[in-house]
Amino acid sequence: MRKIPFDKAWIEETAKKWPTPFHVYDAKAIRDNAKRLRKAFAWNDGFREYFAVKATPNPHLMKLLQEFGFGSDCSSMAELVLAEKVGNVGEAIMFTSNDTPAEEFRKAWELGAIINFDDITHWEYFLEAVNGAAATSRPSADDSGTLRAAGLSSAQNASAPLPKELGERLFCCRYNPGPLKGGNAIIGKPEEAKYGFTRAQLFEGYAKMKAAGVTRFGLHTMVASNELDPDYIIDTAKMLFTLAGELHEALGIDFEFVNIGGGIGIPYRPDQQAMDLERVGKGIRDAYRELVTAKGLKPLKLFMECGRCITGPYGYLVARVRHIKNTYRLYAGLDASMSNLMRPALYGAYHEIVVPGKERSTETSVYDVTGSLCENNDKFAIGRVLPVLARGDYVVICDAGAHGHAMGFQYNGKLRSAELLLEADGSVREIRRAETLDDYFATLDFAGL
Amino acid sequence: MRKIPFDKAWIEETAKKWPTPFHVYDAKAIRDNAKRLRKAFAWNDGFREYFAVKATPNPHLMKLLQEFGFGSDCSSMAELVLAEKVGNVGEAIMFTSNDTPAEEFRKAWELGAIINFDDITHWEYFLEAVNGAAATSRPSADDSGTLRAAGLSSAQNASAPLPKELGERLFCCRYNPGPLKGGNAIIGKPEEAKYGFTRAQLFEGYAKMKAAGVTRFGLHTMVASNELDPDYIIDTAKMLFTLAGELHEALGIDFEFVNIGGGIGIPYRPDQQAMDLERVGKGIRDAYRELVTAKGLKPLKLFMECGRCITGPYGYLVARVRHIKNTYRLYAGLDASMSNLMRPALYGAYHEIVVPGKERSTETSVYDVTGSLCENNDKFAIGRVLPVLARGDYVVICDAGAHGHAMGFQYNGKLRSAELLLEADGSVREIRRAETLDDYFATLDFAGL
Repeated sequence: MRKIPFDKAWIEETAKKWPTPFHVYDAKAIRDNAKRLRKAFAWNDGFREYFAVKATPNPHLMKLLQEFGFGSDCSSMAELVLAEKVGNVGEAIMFTSNDTPAEEFRKAWELGAIINFDDITHWEYFLEAVNGAAATSRPSADDSGTLRAAGLSSAQNASAPLPKELGERLFCCRYNPGPLKGGNAIIGKPEEAKYGFTRAQLFEGYAKMKAAGVTRFGLHTMVASNELDPDYIIDTAKMLFTLAGELHEALGIDFEFVNIGGGIGIPYRPDQQAMDLERVGKGIRDAYRELVTAKGLKPLKLFMECGRCITGPYGYLVARVRHIKNTYRLYAGLDASMSNLMRPALYGAYHEIVVPGKERSTETSVYDVTGSLCENNDKFAIGRVLPVLARGDYVVICDAGAHGHAMGFQYNGKLRSAELLLEADGSVREIRRAETLDDYFATLDFAGL
Repeated sequence: MRKIPFDKAWIEETAKKWPTPFHVYDAKAIRDNAKRLRKAFAWNDGFREYFAVKATPNPHLMKLLQEFGFGSDCSSMAELVLAEKVGNVGEAIMFTSNDTPAEEFRKAWELGAIINFDDITHWEYFLEAVNGAAATSRPSADDSGTLRAAGLSSAQNASAPLPKELGERLFCCRYNPGPLKGGNAIIGKPEEAKYGFTRAQLFEGYAKMKAAGVTRFGLHTMVASNELDPDYIIDTAKMLFTLAGELHEALGIDFEFVNIGGGIGIPYRPDQQAMDLERVGKGIRDAYRELVTAKGLKPLKLFMECGRCITGPYGYLVARVRHIKNTYRLYAGLDASMSNLMRPALYGAYHEIVVPGKERSTETSVYDVTGSLCENNDKFAIGRVLPVLARGDYVVICDAGAHGHAMGFQYNGKLRSAELLLEADGSVREIRRAETLDDYFATLDFAGL
């Protein structure tokens, strides 16, 4: 059974102040993990991890990661504002969005973020946005359903003068290799993904930016999700190093960084192995020497935007058994529901379950572990062998530290729980309060009833 | 292309006050539909529809349905409070929960709701709850992982005296037929569902309630979801009529009602047919004559708890095309995302898409219609033939009136949109405001950063 950094007595004490269910994150483990990642890539001058805010959008965790120089990978207005509140501004933000609204381009620009374009048409749209001519409220008459390669010619019109700082800012394009790279099990085939530029568009896009006066470039891709094969990540880096060389060759531009994306997985199942970060680091270093240094390219900073592997294994959903039910199957009903952790219900994902105080129990039963949400897929586990459970037992659902609280909905009137931080000295700090019914009703006006 | 109750000019006007995306519900169509349902079951004295609040938990819609005598099917504290705010109290509430917390039993009891037990152990738990001895904070020492048939003997102890009103209140049990009834495509096999009593438990449960002084009984099941076959619903009613007779025979109790659940589907796809409510009504009436009247049972009220078929087809998600993107596929990126409507991303569900102003367009293209959420499954349609789209076009996603806004999450910092009500006179009323960043940040304390 998985080792967890607290015991039943700790839960009992903590639950007096924060009733179950709650999420708790292990600060020490997150710090140790951040150091491990940094060390694996210490060979690269300028290496930076941009934490994927989406995974766990808690500013207190973002602040903790800032200690290690981690920036913020943002893809929405809310995430940009979170980064700003944490003090991650300027090039500590990598803004990687898709189907991007004008106001988010403006905000990212104002914050000095590295702007990563998802599509070739976004260059002109961005220029219009930062010049205050938001495209959403003024659709161009000449837009059409087929690709419109938004060129500099129109953007350089009086209606959209180039912002003065263009030459000082870092711009990036997101590459979608399409059929040139095999897919990953979770993210699917790149050619079916809505993200990024084709190879041809990439050459065209950088040429336009160069013509407009951009001098600082980065190159990005994201082709993995929850990947446990180190070679897949190493191959992604190779692909970008090679491509940076080709773009340099063709366009005479130098890249400051490549961002190989995130997607490093975690071992949810007991039979899975954590990715060997040292091996990934060495593999990418070797590729760097071969494809960057030996080719005479200028030094490239390596960026990553991991989320899951940064906080995932170090967050726990703590719940309590409310009911034991025996019908056609045996059920343990918890006081948590899929609103607290959607992955098992959505993806059939496996999460380890620990029963503090019964770790050494030899008497077991097979349970469907459910929540109370009025959906039959509201189950944390199906057919799981666990110590014999009783009403009132605490259960800890592991690996809930990423895409856990963040994905929760309020369907069926369920409320989202508190997030706590377990500090290295054993103290506990609330980093997000639990929702109340007032939060749930906040957007309603009962007056007119 | 689907007919919708508004046009492009209306959207343009409405969007001035409520920027896209927004949900809008057609009040007249909902009223007409409610009348149709009521008429189909007018043969049954006491017929009542309890609207499944979960589907569209908006008090203004609940109030509208109240005009037709519709009660509220509630399964959480938030839904009980919504019903209370709307003025649906007493037996206008059917409380059908699972893995139920003590405080929800108390609230339902205080409101005078019909209480529908999901499990045989809930009877004693309920008695303890309404006597103020909440089981969650005081787990019984003798609970165990195997079935504990919570009998009256212990409930009648000094610690849990019977509430005085027990004999006046309506109580119900939820039947799970298990392998005795074939499954429905969406809800799955009954024996794999976490809900309800087995047949044997049902006889035991009602006997206990009778012994405790309960005199008013109902019988419930819910074995369908989005079902379009009238016979499946008719068969469910037959099953309950028969069972009510058997329980009467065995225990000498009379039932006031049977609740056949909801689960009536709607035709999301153009090749599907709406369920013929008149046929369902007549089929159930014939079964009633045969299995209730002819058997000499006392009259039974027929209850239903539909959600989807009440509001589903009459709600629309109105969005706007923000970007057209052409890479390996052609994409129309909207200003809405799966946060506004999860069904396509979660289930691959089909929703009709209408492009007001281009209904008669003969020039078409094949689009993946996406949102901006940083998940590749954030797509409203894949490979959909639509009129050629341009930036700024409005698109209307149909059948979003149930399990639409209600299921939205805030993942990736996306905000949930407003809900509007289109009245029969053409006027528009806001029945839920759009979320703001302040709502998104409400549970965070930035002070400690």
